[in-house]
Amino acid sequence: MNPVELKKLLADLSTGKLSVDEGMERLATLPYEDLGVARIDHHRHLRQGTPETILGARKTAEQMITIVGAMVRRGSNVLITRLDADKAESLVAKFPKGCYDGEARTFTLVQTPVEVLGKGRILVVCAGTSDLPVAREATVTARMLGNEVEELVDVGVAGIHRLFDRLDILRSAAVVIVVAGMEGALPSVIGGLVASPVIAVPTSVGYGASFGGIAALLGMLNSCASGVTVVNIDNGFGAACAAARINRRNPS
Amino acid sequence: MNPVELKKLLADLSTGKLSVDEGMERLATLPYEDLGVARIDHHRHLRQGTPETILGARKTAEQMITIVGAMVRRGSNVLITRLDADKAESLVAKFPKGCYDGEARTFTLVQTPVEVLGKGRILVVCAGTSDLPVAREATVTARMLGNEVEELVDVGVAGIHRLFDRLDILRSAAVVIVVAGMEGALPSVIGGLVASPVIAVPTSVGYGASFGGIAALLGMLNSCASGVTVVNIDNGFGAACAAARINRRNPS
Amino acid sequence: MNPVELKKLLADLSTGKLSVDEGMERLATLPYEDLGVARIDHHRHLRQGTPETILGARKTAEQMITIVGAMVRRGSNVLITRLDADKAESLVAKFPKGCYDGEARTFTLVQTPVEVLGKGRILVVCAGTSDLPVAREATVTARMLGNEVEELVDVGVAGIHRLFDRLDILRSAAVVIVVAGMEGALPSVIGGLVASPVIAVPTSVGYGASFGGIAALLGMLNSCASGVTVVNIDNGFGAACAAARINRRNPS
Amino acid sequence: MNPVELKKLLADLSTGKLSVDEGMERLATLPYEDLGVARIDHHRHLRQGTPETILGARKTAEQMITIVGAMVRRGSNVLITRLDADKAESLVAKFPKGCYDGEARTFTLVQTPVEVLGKGRILVVCAGTSDLPVAREATVTARMLGNEVEELVDVGVAGIHRLFDRLDILRSAAVVIVVAGMEGALPSVIGGLVASPVIAVPTSVGYGASFGGIAALLGMLNSCASGVTVVNIDNGFGAACAAARINRRNPS
Amino acid sequence: MNPVELKKLLADLSTGKLSVDEGMERLATLPYEDLGVARIDHHRHLRQGTPETILGARKTAEQMITIVGAMVRRGSNVLITRLDADKAESLVAKFPKGCYDGEARTFTLVQTPVEVLGKGRILVVCAGTSDLPVAREATVTARMLGNEVEELVDVGVAGIHRLFDRLDILRSAAVVIVVAGMEGALPSVIGGLVASPVIAVPTSVGYGASFGGIAALLGMLNSCASGVTVVNIDNGFGAACAAARINRRNPS
Amino acid sequence: MNPVELKKLLADLSTGKLSVDEGMERLATLPYEDLGVARIDHHRHLRQGTPETILGARKTAEQMITIVGAMVRRGSNVLITRLDADKAESLVAKFPKGCYDGEARTFTLVQTPVEVLGKGRILVVCAGTSDLPVAREATVTARMLGNEVEELVDVGVAGIHRLFDRLDILRSAAVVIVVAGMEGALPSVIGGLVASPVIAVPTSVGYGASFGGIAALLGMLNSCASGVTVVNIDNGFGAACAAARINRRNPS
Amino acid sequence: MNPVELKKLLADLSTGKLSVDEGMERLATLPYEDLGVARIDHHRHLRQGTPETILGARKTAEQMITIVGAMVRRGSNVLITRLDADKAESLVAKFPKGCYDGEARTFTLVQTPVEVLGKGRILVVCAGTSDLPVAREATVTARMLGNEVEELVDVGVAGIHRLFDRLDILRSAAVVIVVAGMEGALPSVIGGLVASPVIAVPTSVGYGASFGGIAALLGMLNSCASGVTVVNIDNGFGAACAAARINRRNPS
Amino acid sequence: MNPVELKKLLADLSTGKLSVDEGMERLATLPYEDLGVARIDHHRHLRQGTPETILGARKTAEQMITIVGAMVRRGSNVLITRLDADKAESLVAKFPKGCYDGEARTFTLVQTPVEVLGKGRILVVCAGTSDLPVAREATVTARMLGNEVEELVDVGVAGIHRLFDRLDILRSAAVVIVVAGMEGALPSVIGGLVASPVIAVPTSVGYGASFGGIAALLGMLNSCASGVTVVNIDNGFGAACAAARINRRNPS
Repeated sequence: MNPVELKKLLADLSTGKLSVDEGMERLATLPYEDLGVARIDHHRHLRQGTPETILGARKTAEQMITIVGAMVRRGSNVLITRLDADKAESLVAKFPKGCYDGEARTFTLVQTPVEVLGKGRILVVCAGTSDLPVAREATVTARMLGNEVEELVDVGVAGIHRLFDRLDILRSAAVVIVVAGMEGALPSVIGGLVASPVIAVPTSVGYGASFGGIAALLGMLNSCASGVTVVNIDNGFGAACAAARINRRNPS
Repeated sequence: MNPVELKKLLADLSTGKLSVDEGMERLATLPYEDLGVARIDHHRHLRQGTPETILGARKTAEQMITIVGAMVRRGSNVLITRLDADKAESLVAKFPKGCYDGEARTFTLVQTPVEVLGKGRILVVCAGTSDLPVAREATVTARMLGNEVEELVDVGVAGIHRLFDRLDILRSAAVVIVVAGMEGALPSVIGGLVASPVIAVPTSVGYGASFGGIAALLGMLNSCASGVTVVNIDNGFGAACAAARINRRNPS
Repeated sequence: MNPVELKKLLADLSTGKLSVDEGMERLATLPYEDLGVARIDHHRHLRQGTPETILGARKTAEQMITIVGAMVRRGSNVLITRLDADKAESLVAKFPKGCYDGEARTFTLVQTPVEVLGKGRILVVCAGTSDLPVAREATVTARMLGNEVEELVDVGVAGIHRLFDRLDILRSAAVVIVVAGMEGALPSVIGGLVASPVIAVPTSVGYGASFGGIAALLGMLNSCASGVTVVNIDNGFGAACAAARINRRNPS
Repeated sequence: MNPVELKKLLADLSTGKLSVDEGMERLATLPYEDLGVARIDHHRHLRQGTPETILGARKTAEQMITIVGAMVRRGSNVLITRLDADKAESLVAKFPKGCYDGEARTFTLVQTPVEVLGKGRILVVCAGTSDLPVAREATVTARMLGNEVEELVDVGVAGIHRLFDRLDILRSAAVVIVVAGMEGALPSVIGGLVASPVIAVPTSVGYGASFGGIAALLGMLNSCASGVTVVNIDNGFGAACAAARINRRNPS
Repeated sequence: MNPVELKKLLADLSTGKLSVDEGMERLATLPYEDLGVARIDHHRHLRQGTPETILGARKTAEQMITIVGAMVRRGSNVLITRLDADKAESLVAKFPKGCYDGEARTFTLVQTPVEVLGKGRILVVCAGTSDLPVAREATVTARMLGNEVEELVDVGVAGIHRLFDRLDILRSAAVVIVVAGMEGALPSVIGGLVASPVIAVPTSVGYGASFGGIAALLGMLNSCASGVTVVNIDNGFGAACAAARINRRNPS
Repeated sequence: MNPVELKKLLADLSTGKLSVDEGMERLATLPYEDLGVARIDHHRHLRQGTPETILGARKTAEQMITIVGAMVRRGSNVLITRLDADKAESLVAKFPKGCYDGEARTFTLVQTPVEVLGKGRILVVCAGTSDLPVAREATVTARMLGNEVEELVDVGVAGIHRLFDRLDILRSAAVVIVVAGMEGALPSVIGGLVASPVIAVPTSVGYGASFGGIAALLGMLNSCASGVTVVNIDNGFGAACAAARINRRNPS
Repeated sequence: MNPVELKKLLADLSTGKLSVDEGMERLATLPYEDLGVARIDHHRHLRQGTPETILGARKTAEQMITIVGAMVRRGSNVLITRLDADKAESLVAKFPKGCYDGEARTFTLVQTPVEVLGKGRILVVCAGTSDLPVAREATVTARMLGNEVEELVDVGVAGIHRLFDRLDILRSAAVVIVVAGMEGALPSVIGGLVASPVIAVPTSVGYGASFGGIAALLGMLNSCASGVTVVNIDNGFGAACAAARINRRNPS
Repeated sequence: MNPVELKKLLADLSTGKLSVDEGMERLATLPYEDLGVARIDHHRHLRQGTPETILGARKTAEQMITIVGAMVRRGSNVLITRLDADKAESLVAKFPKGCYDGEARTFTLVQTPVEVLGKGRILVVCAGTSDLPVAREATVTARMLGNEVEELVDVGVAGIHRLFDRLDILRSAAVVIVVAGMEGALPSVIGGLVASPVIAVPTSVGYGASFGGIAALLGMLNSCASGVTVVNIDNGFGAACAAARINRRNPS
């Protein structure tokens, strides 16, 4: 029931087409969403700024082709994350306008140009090539969410002076996403150098006592630079969503 | 070496008082901070918007009186967190302008009025009285950092409809800090209802398999509402710092 | 807005006292609870069968006296769990009709007689005196929720034949709550002997590699007797709530 | 020794065919089961309502064909869980009356129609397609155990309003099985909305700090909705067994 | 029903005092224990060689006085473990024949002399004074169980040559109990030097990454000397019980 | 230097062929093993009763053929554990006298008949087919170590009465090895029924919260039946070695 | 900006080509590295003594060929660790001067002879063939870093006397690297026998409760031999780097 | 048996006072230590450079007074670590030459002046006052072991530029001990700036997800600066022992 229908119901009441008891019954069982709450959901990608998104990890190429087909018909932009190269091939064959980024393992399909919604620039920082796939997933996601994004790769804690050459870039960003594996110390260092929000992404890069990213995760949660927040291990997508929420020009 | 000294050095060079080689040597050994980087540190509370802050947990009352005394002489505002009531008594006796909040376990001393630096309102949400100390720590901290703060207490996942009566308050906030123990599900629910940044704070409230907050922490890191970020267990202070970074009018 | 008010709103519409647009506006902002959803909450103890309950663990005697006072004025029955003996003394002094069970660590105050709502008998089983406090918490809670309860104490896995003498009691129960620490194997054995629902409660009894109840918890989650469900460590209260849900004569 | 034999023994005693000492000896070594305890086991699937069940995970197709063949000869109904598609093919080829459900990964073979033994309807709820295999395993199992089952898919915590449209379905179920991965918060929300028993099944869906379902498991064990019980990670089968125990018309 | 009663029942049958049907009924409901199984339990300390034992950790002095009193009346020998000195004082005051060992934290009361049941000597080895309480608990327990026991203290892995001076003592023992904290390596070394059974007891001695004995426990479970078995952390009592089982002259 | 050489050295001294100082020097640098300690090692399989054993898990077929060849030339009996079927094929082809047990995953080659060294019978118990490989590894190992071994399969905690039919077998064993996965409760039950030594072997059988055998391991370490000892997860080999140490007729 | 440019800047100032204010501005934004700090980085392998090193684990053969090519052009020596044999083949085909060690899984390419920089000999000790790959990685790395290295294989804790035959080798080493899996006790034993620095490397060798090397790691961190330090699980490379730092003749 | 006695034995042999067989017997049972191995032990503090050391944590003042008394009589220097202030009072009262450091919680008693044995200076670095007790324990221990020690306090990762002002001190140290809690990132940064050995000490400083130092420990084990080694949590003593081994002028 949309507002038009609701208005008609009330009009019917006021004109006697509907009795008070009939109106009671219909309103009592009225699903919430008809009151404007749930419609938000049908337009979730508008409300939260996210394109329609698929987690590609456990789906077959066939399943994804079906889902993307439906999205394309709705006119949505599409973002698939954690997509293997072989499945990507089938998708690109089917949707030649789509684009696969082998580093980020993302598939993007833009039907309506992505409008820049962000106030400033999101900076994605990581220490090296091992962390790059997670960093790139953040980059692709943040761009799809309407943000200007820059990447700063190859600045690490054990070669700390390299960071100082990039102070300008670091300090001019509206939000900084720091991707790091191993001991996960980079967000602490950067958090001490900039005043803007810092989102830390632990990666599962490492071996032995890195425990698949737990070491980095704990390091980031215990950061001595106050005001650093953390997302799940390898969650470049989530970090970009959080950064986009922060960077949104008109959030509500 | 401060800018004045640097200017003098260059002037001496330009006037020949100093040879080029002498200038080389002095500059080569020039400590960084003299170039304007480290001065930032002396004014850290300006750079990052934090007042001078003390973690009260492991310090004696005597140690804190000494530290606060020095801060007062510098003209700083002071925030002590995790302060036991008995130690607070000594501090308030010594610094009667200071104020102890027994719920938040914070001591605050304001010498210069706190200017509102935030763009919007920070909302601190928690499910009940058990989580209140952590929520209140966030509130006090965020206010000391120059933000307008509102609290929303007693909205829980098991009585989900109460949240819906507060949608206006939730959706009008610039940043939402959600404090929750036990299963830590509240940030997911709220993250699905608002478009603004959501910072989740797990608390150590619970028993048995809550493992001192680990259950809540993991719940939040795995939030199905994308864009939720997380801080350390019981870290109301850190959440407020992150919220202040986000809410800052002119971050850089 | 309650149904009476809603009816009046619709009547006003049908008689023209309220215009269609005015009706639209009031209904659009109508809080859910006025539609009958939230009222459930005001009567939560009726909907879920629970009395008004307080977790006594972190509250002061003063705080609890205030809360219980309010409950008493509402005419509610009261159940406090995890209540230390010294706090209990203050409560009983203030509310002499209340009753403290030192083993269960519960305080109960019955203003209106508890009606038996359960279909059958709930049986609470444990291996020995160490597990008794948790078992007794379950017993007290289940009784307050309107169930007939029986206890079977001192049947353990290492003296398995004792169980066989009690097969009649075990098999005639409507629900069996099994409380066990250490290796937590008792629910598996009982689950293989009865056809009724079995709820397992791990306790923190043990030392070393019992890890505060984790060993028992894992044992129960991995029970080889299919159909055993588990609650949190030491959560006698929760087990009783679950048993009461199962045993309810007219659940909806 | 069955009752007939026992009767004969006693008759022999009463007629002097057997001396008292001979009787003593035979009875002293009498295996329990002859006294009616163990016979229960031969009819375990009747006692507990379960069909003969095989965990398919570690068995070869050949092993399972042998086992199913024996069950078929006994006239039993058969349920195999965790069965890979390739092994299923061999089984269906051999037993064409059997049926493989690729989503649930179950093989079922019904020789005698499953009688409805349950009092009410079991509702299986999950948040999305990732949790569907576990939910479907619960559905198939519960049906094989003689229950009417309904599924409610795609209701999640981050889109909480969708739950409200299904309140009728939720509240009319006799038992609700809630299957959820990631933060595992759905059972808490549903546990707060219904009065019937809620069984929570954590799934291993997720990555990073979901730790193969531990995050969901802990979330459920710490549910703020009292009366929620939990089974092992991915244990749709066990949840259905527990639900069937609860829903049984004549449990004993 | 004891054998005498059973014999009478059969005699009554053979003489016609009891009909066959009456005999059937009485035997069908006959509790197991009357068939000689449960009597074992009444004499458990004879069957397993253990004296009546109390875990003193969570009991009050009053509770223990009651229990010991009952044991004394039964003529049993008594062993209490994990007994604090202050509670011990009350016990010894009440039972002056009893004896408290402050190092082992055990109370023993011998009413009938302990007969030596073991074939050989049990050797209890530990590295130093920190592990001594656990070692001594093993010693006292093993002696109460009828074994000759010798202690070898102050042989550690970091001073490995000291072990070699004791090869005779090590190799002449029937069973070796090795108590060790920290890295728990001593059982591996000893297991490589002797051919007799080695029981390893991890202790909670250590700090930091010893995690309350987990490091030692894992070390022992992974011992490179094959044939070493392990008991729970700090479980000197259990190690002695196992050693007594091994050392028993006529185990069955 | 062997005893013969030592004797010669001393004779040379006594006859003046060697000066005191020369004797001093040679003895000061005398390696231990020449004093009879290390020779033990050359005959380790005699000292500890173990055949020459290879852990097959990480070795190639080629590596094992080389090692077994050397052992064969020494006249040793051979036991390889954790051997994959494909590697076994190569070994059996090369050493046709050897024998591969596909269930136990062991390769055995007996050159000299295994003499029975054990006093009594070792009983290996497990709950079902999933635990069988570990149980069988124990069986094969114990037999190679000179023990009479019996297996008792398919007795589980959820069908506890089946155990009672086997009390004779259980109670007549000299040592009982109990192999169990899932909640690992079987050793507790058996430990309460027999007086002989019980060695518990947790297996990695299970899923979800069994955590690869941790649940069973913890259950066994916390056994309420005193005197149960534990070996590493899936360590059937180690359990057999421990049982052989216990069962040895003349251990030293 | 390099020293030449800096000198020119100062010269320009002294000659008036640049005003003082212009000089101020250029120097204030001067990146650190131009002041001689960052140049260190360009010569990192000189500063830290490491050759240019690649972690081969996650890189493709193509990626590594590109990187090695660049290194070769710079005239660097090259060390790749954790390199699979199949990728190694491509590398050796491309760079025939390079050398692959299949045990250590390292690729080394020496363009300029490695000068011996170490004061003494580094000894790498391990217990057996399973730990050999990690030990060998340490050996190869330490040699590439300019050290004389010796290996001592097959000395284990369960055959402790073998160590005593090697006391000379152990005590004459400048640094001892001890590689051990399972219970990780070897470093404690060796740490008690030598006075030189001991670096312990836990390996992931083992199964069950070895938890991929955690047992060994914890054992080493809790070593009772004071002065033993530890590196990450399987980190032979890191141990060698640490040993090289210690052994460096002129460290600064 | 000391060398003098051995010489006498050989002399007796050469003069015929002792027969060859008598000599055989005495030498065969000769304890090792008489051959010069164990004497090392009696002089352990000389061999390893450690004074006689007591871990004060679990000992009573009385126990320590006894032990220290014996050490004093032997003429040893004494070091007690982890000593509470109240116990220290008793010790200092008894041994007025001793000295208690309340920050380090150490008691030292120097009878013979500590000779400087180290080649260079050991630098102990920590981030702040919370880590100071552990740092100071390292300082005191290293000094007692004959090293020159310097402390560098208040250099943290979040204020990274402060480190750069201390590059000279950092780079001139022979060994650097870095003490850090929280995320434990400081050793990585310092390890990247210096070429000398770096020993990392995690501290239990922190809360929530620092898990009593586990976060810092994991961070250090995963350090991206190669060549950093780690000791146990809060183990300042062990770090100093390791540093002393490294810094020893003549290690063997």
